[in-house]
Amino acid sequence: MQRIEHRACFGGWQDVYEHASDTLGCTMRVAVYLPPQAAHGRLPVLYWLSGLTCNEQNFITKAGAQRYAAEHGVIVVAPDTSPRGDDVADADGYDLGKGAGFYVDAVQAPWSAHYRMYDYVVHELPALIEGGLPASGARAISGHSMGGHGALVIALRNPGRYRSVSAFSPIVAPSRVPWGAKAFGAYLGDDRAAWRAYDATALVETATERLPLLVDQGDADEFLDDQLRPQLLQAACEAVGHPLTLRLQPGYDHSYYFIASFIGEHIAHHAAALHA
Amino acid sequence: MQRIEHRACFGGWQDVYEHASDTLGCTMRVAVYLPPQAAHGRLPVLYWLSGLTCNEQNFITKAGAQRYAAEHGVIVVAPDTSPRGDDVADADGYDLGKGAGFYVDAVQAPWSAHYRMYDYVVHELPALIEGGLPASGARAISGHSMGGHGALVIALRNPGRYRSVSAFSPIVAPSRVPWGAKAFGAYLGDDRAAWRAYDATALVETATERLPLLVDQGDADEFLDDQLRPQLLQAACEAVGHPLTLRLQPGYDHSYYFIASFIGEHIAHHAAALHA
Repeated sequence: MQRIEHRACFGGWQDVYEHASDTLGCTMRVAVYLPPQAAHGRLPVLYWLSGLTCNEQNFITKAGAQRYAAEHGVIVVAPDTSPRGDDVADADGYDLGKGAGFYVDAVQAPWSAHYRMYDYVVHELPALIEGGLPASGARAISGHSMGGHGALVIALRNPGRYRSVSAFSPIVAPSRVPWGAKAFGAYLGDDRAAWRAYDATALVETATERLPLLVDQGDADEFLDDQLRPQLLQAACEAVGHPLTLRLQPGYDHSYYFIASFIGEHIAHHAAALHA
Repeated sequence: MQRIEHRACFGGWQDVYEHASDTLGCTMRVAVYLPPQAAHGRLPVLYWLSGLTCNEQNFITKAGAQRYAAEHGVIVVAPDTSPRGDDVADADGYDLGKGAGFYVDAVQAPWSAHYRMYDYVVHELPALIEGGLPASGARAISGHSMGGHGALVIALRNPGRYRSVSAFSPIVAPSRVPWGAKAFGAYLGDDRAAWRAYDATALVETATERLPLLVDQGDADEFLDDQLRPQLLQAACEAVGHPLTLRLQPGYDHSYYFIASFIGEHIAHHAAALHA
């Protein structure tokens, strides 16, 4: 990993690294916040997965998470949302292709050549972080919108790998909403049985670990009824007794102002699990 | 003023207004954060002046100030940095013309037709804010880089008008650095005597009010030696006994990560003066 940005922030360092990804077959950027405590020992890591159109910059410039990460002694790692580069397939529209990897491993051409964000986030990225930075191996995961979907799916499919999981405005049931149907149809093909492996509401039904889910959702979110539908996750969790804290936050929309307002509570939630 | 953005944030509202400016002869945008306490009465206002290339968005999306404004019950008003629109003169380069108003009232053509940011910030903008929003009339002022220059100059030239003033990485002596010499030469002309009215180090010499200046400056700031030169302000303040707290923050650069790291302390400083 080559460090390409290095900026003092809340007593620590907001860095950006560039590295060649074997999984994705391209050069990737990943943002890493190292709190001041990282100078003195290994720390737990919160992985943050961003939403549609984002790269590694959005969360680190807009969420204000560094203050809380410094307070709690947590490293925050924010990868890009898709493979990048001239060789990587793309599509018209913001919701497929670059900036819209949906944290799946694509099996359909032309996407299958590079779009393996699930594998990248679950395996290659943590190995890089834990091999090259003062990371302890204790992991938590969170994200926003498409990234909230990614965080829930990745935590539910990998019991024991994450101490805690949370999501802001997640796409909880991608198989049943337009964003997910478009992306899964392209990346995974028409066989909807294959979509289950990337659908949090389906995965809850068979989860072997009862990792509590923390979800914040603004009730003025412009995508609430068409794309997000948190009540589907609530029903799935209730049906099997999976622990879920779903908070409908009055007045909040889908923007980073919503994330900024509650990221402190999420980081405190993760820190409690990570330092336990 | 017409409200064009309205987003819940830390229990209050991050809004953006558009209005026709008589002073500038164009349509302007201004960002306003209303903390939750604004629902129950009039509150003091902190005016934030942004730096080169910025518009009304940079501070509200990147500084994380809303948390502290909500905590302290302070409205934060962040105007644009220059007149805007197709009729407004512009120049090549980021440091003159649009995005680079330097908070002066231009007297040279073609700039004098619209570039009157000093007058706008001192008179028209507070009148609009105090006439149309729950603002009490108690004012503080701060800013970054070009905006730090603007905050210092405006506070020093208007005794009694601001309860407190602070600056991040300000251009303290524009008459003596390349950014200021270029802008002042264009906007004010070649007579350097006219530049004194917009140079904080010169204004300190004749200030009739000993309003304490709070200045934070990163010691890894890439513009420190060529453009910012805070030691010139320090010398000017020492010569006349003007109170100055100049803090050199180790490792910090010129970016919003620096502002985000210390804006909480600045807002606490202003809130103490505003609520006194």
